[in-house]
Amino acid sequence: MDLWYTEKHSDNVGITMKVSKSLFSGKSDFQQLDIVETLEYGKMMLLDGLVMVTERDEFIYHDMIVHPALFTHPCPKKVLVIGGGDGGSIREIMKHSSVEQAVLCEIDGLVIEKSIEFFPTIASEIDGSNPRVKLHVDDGLAYIREHQDEFDIILVDSTDPIGPAIGLFEQDFYNLVAGALKEDGIMVAQSESPFYHAKIQQAMFANLRAVFPIVEMYQAFIPTYPSGFWSFAFASKRYHPLHDFDKDRAKNRVFYTKYYNEDLHIGAFMLPTFARENIKP
Amino acid sequence: MDLWYTEKHSDNVGITMKVSKSLFSGKSDFQQLDIVETLEYGKMMLLDGLVMVTERDEFIYHDMIVHPALFTHPCPKKVLVIGGGDGGSIREIMKHSSVEQAVLCEIDGLVIEKSIEFFPTIASEIDGSNPRVKLHVDDGLAYIREHQDEFDIILVDSTDPIGPAIGLFEQDFYNLVAGALKEDGIMVAQSESPFYHAKIQQAMFANLRAVFPIVEMYQAFIPTYPSGFWSFAFASKRYHPLHDFDKDRAKNRVFYTKYYNEDLHIGAFMLPTFARENIKP
Repeated sequence: MDLWYTEKHSDNVGITMKVSKSLFSGKSDFQQLDIVETLEYGKMMLLDGLVMVTERDEFIYHDMIVHPALFTHPCPKKVLVIGGGDGGSIREIMKHSSVEQAVLCEIDGLVIEKSIEFFPTIASEIDGSNPRVKLHVDDGLAYIREHQDEFDIILVDSTDPIGPAIGLFEQDFYNLVAGALKEDGIMVAQSESPFYHAKIQQAMFANLRAVFPIVEMYQAFIPTYPSGFWSFAFASKRYHPLHDFDKDRAKNRVFYTKYYNEDLHIGAFMLPTFARENIKP
Repeated sequence: MDLWYTEKHSDNVGITMKVSKSLFSGKSDFQQLDIVETLEYGKMMLLDGLVMVTERDEFIYHDMIVHPALFTHPCPKKVLVIGGGDGGSIREIMKHSSVEQAVLCEIDGLVIEKSIEFFPTIASEIDGSNPRVKLHVDDGLAYIREHQDEFDIILVDSTDPIGPAIGLFEQDFYNLVAGALKEDGIMVAQSESPFYHAKIQQAMFANLRAVFPIVEMYQAFIPTYPSGFWSFAFASKRYHPLHDFDKDRAKNRVFYTKYYNEDLHIGAFMLPTFARENIKP
């Protein structure tokens, strides 16, 4: 059987990938979870039919949601990830020796369980073996309401603003995040494709600017996401991602990063004109 | 009829687009040319079954093959485009008032003819109305052999290194290009996807380094090209694209660019680690 998985990025365009087999398919209380083996991208996880993670290109998303904030903050000690149940963000955070504790707050326990089972290289730090990592299977909003003024960095590693993640793009949520951050804290959130999602970006960045004094967008190429052109919101109380960036510290990092580097950190914030215009205040 | 066009980027992955109708299909002496109407990307031109140009995202490729070189050279007067029969590169070159003459040397007259017919907003400067533009339907190699020491900038706006463009990725060709450039000339060529085409890039950049003292790679997001992550080679006899870049001149440009801007010019050269490694000397 010649099996192809096609994800439509709109009614009229999509990506299509050859699949050798289905490894898991199940429904949690929150969403449909599928894991398939693809020939080009290795194992791939889908939530509600949308590509979340593939073995071949996950390094891009996880480098880019983690390292720009952790190399901007001068000494991140306590970091919270909301969502990110595959564990890739936690894996990258653990490479920073300043971090004393990383907390993963994922609403869907099935995502964590199946990531540990099928994606051991991604979930390597969430299998219970690392005492610097704490797992909470909980709603992110509920969790941060109980943990105010506590984190140096909060990463919102969420799905699209439909389904369980819808609340994670609203101003009330950003107010709670700001409260859960220390006075010099930084939040980073995935912020969709500038090419396809201009309206979501416009609303999201307006919401962020109502809460944080420093709000910037940065970009990464992610081949398996719509258009291949993806973005992140950097929202900060004190540190600016370029003006306060210590390039030498990033350059002298003791771990390998296949996507991130000290020059790319700067270039990632240099946006195409149309992307700038999406988020113009 | 529900018609979808799928371009395979390898045996195992591709992009798929809904097509409302076929506008033209024909065979020239060099290649198969198709023009279809898509719902997401407007009209689309295919050569030998590969996407060359779409109305919706052509601005990215054409901004990025033209403006980095034309804003690096202090005063480009004479510019040659090899390939580029759709006219988009010439259109962008014409926005630079320093340019006295732009020459288009396209091997396939059918591409020019059908671009003027079906893509008037792209081919606007190659319809014979602009005295600053000269058209030659000719082999690029033959043309530059006869025009040595003549151009400030040469843009190689070619198809992939299969079919009629295969010679445009070899060292003999780059030697001819270097000869056709003035002593401070710049060449830019499309250089494939860092994500899928590492081997082509490695060979191409080694060939360029054997000829030019300054060789750099820069990047752009192009949603309809394989992986969405595309690149260009910048090869230069004297001017460095960052050290000799006059940011104020680019900032004060008198025309609108939907992708290019003075900050993006710099950021485009800040490559992901894996892309740097593709072209490591």
